[in-house]
Amino acid sequence: MMNKIGTYEFMAEPFHCDFSGRMFLGHLGNQKLNAADFHSTDRGFGMKYLMTIKRSWVLSRLAIEVTEMPSQYEHFTIETWVESAMRFFTSRNFCVSDGEGRVYGYGRSIWAMIDTETRQPTDIYSIDDGAIKKWIETDKPCPIEKGGRVKMSENITLVKTIDINYNDIDINGHVNSVKYIEHVLDLWNIAWYREHRIKRFEIAYVAETHQGDALRFYREPTAENEYCVRLVKTEGETKNQVEVCRCKAVFG
Amino acid sequence: MMNKIGTYEFMAEPFHCDFSGRMFLGHLGNQKLNAADFHSTDRGFGMKYLMTIKRSWVLSRLAIEVTEMPSQYEHFTIETWVESAMRFFTSRNFCVSDGEGRVYGYGRSIWAMIDTETRQPTDIYSIDDGAIKKWIETDKPCPIEKGGRVKMSENITLVKTIDINYNDIDINGHVNSVKYIEHVLDLWNIAWYREHRIKRFEIAYVAETHQGDALRFYREPTAENEYCVRLVKTEGETKNQVEVCRCKAVFG
Repeated sequence: MMNKIGTYEFMAEPFHCDFSGRMFLGHLGNQKLNAADFHSTDRGFGMKYLMTIKRSWVLSRLAIEVTEMPSQYEHFTIETWVESAMRFFTSRNFCVSDGEGRVYGYGRSIWAMIDTETRQPTDIYSIDDGAIKKWIETDKPCPIEKGGRVKMSENITLVKTIDINYNDIDINGHVNSVKYIEHVLDLWNIAWYREHRIKRFEIAYVAETHQGDALRFYREPTAENEYCVRLVKTEGETKNQVEVCRCKAVFG
Repeated sequence: MMNKIGTYEFMAEPFHCDFSGRMFLGHLGNQKLNAADFHSTDRGFGMKYLMTIKRSWVLSRLAIEVTEMPSQYEHFTIETWVESAMRFFTSRNFCVSDGEGRVYGYGRSIWAMIDTETRQPTDIYSIDDGAIKKWIETDKPCPIEKGGRVKMSENITLVKTIDINYNDIDINGHVNSVKYIEHVLDLWNIAWYREHRIKRFEIAYVAETHQGDALRFYREPTAENEYCVRLVKTEGETKNQVEVCRCKAVFG
């Protein structure tokens, strides 16, 4: 009988670590998404199977908290489990540790399932007669706050504009979830990261960005060492301005 | 008795694949560097040991040829071995395959060893009484051309300028070798990659780039589907212009 909690081992690769020898948050986020995919694949509702029936998981929200980051060459463990599943959203949690009781941090994520042809939300319970409900784990704690609505005022500052390039785009044809995190964290420089470490990062995805679009970053300080960032795309052909995601970064 | 050739298994992670579902060349390059590190660590001259004696390997040249790229979720094998070792340079080759005889491509690399305090080249033979010489493998073929001098004319076109950010910099405090490859391949857009695939990429590293520097990309077509790219940094404080690397990209 397979456990409800999936446990996967990773290593903090040398070139996935920053100037201080600690893993980049983006790469940790990427490994959480890999763990989510391994867990759901092992239990019959992974991306690879969903592709065959023209469905896909879409990440709607992600919140990551870390008290410490794995160092270069360190092996670490990601546990992941489904905390709840409704017709149109499921929540999945993460615990990152050294596998021997020392916890690096936690994560929370919300996913929708879409029809890859219509791009519309579809019923998660329709997969294998609601099989996901068998895997709900409610006893394992995830002691971090859920992602909330990121409130921002109207007079926020445009701090950067970038073009979207070939390496930003994944097999879904739009900007990879993790690339947004990297681009947002690039708003601060190494001098800042010498004095501050990221404690919590949360992101809510609103729309997709494509090659040829430009991304505008609006940033607002909302508390001491806390910033909200709104990303707005300028669409390549129409020049329409569309909000694509909102983030909150808390430093310590 | 350990084999002269090291063999390491990897998977083409979903978010390390491009819009077409094939692995990004940058991520393949990164896995080659990981394989190089595993191989040298297993044989007593890896980065982790070198750090303890204030030495480091520095990648001087890398050439990658691929006839095909691993697809999303595909497991692949990287074999790596030392082809030659002199006092100040060693050459290391790579073969990427499915582990069952289907070859995706090959790689060649040249490395120097530096003193991490003086940043000056040091004698590779000084490590464990020239131990690297025991591991030289000359029978395994690597049927791709060595990287040559990338010749460019003087009237080349400036096609892009970017700033160097937090996520570009690794534990050595300068731009990661693989990030240059990604930034250069980002000079072409998805419309180009729909019609062309990268067949060969070669890069010669000349100087280091740091946070706060800007990188200028000069590109010149040198044959059909062949381009040379020169990267020049504008140093953050002095505004000095220094060539940091030269690349050649051949598409098919």
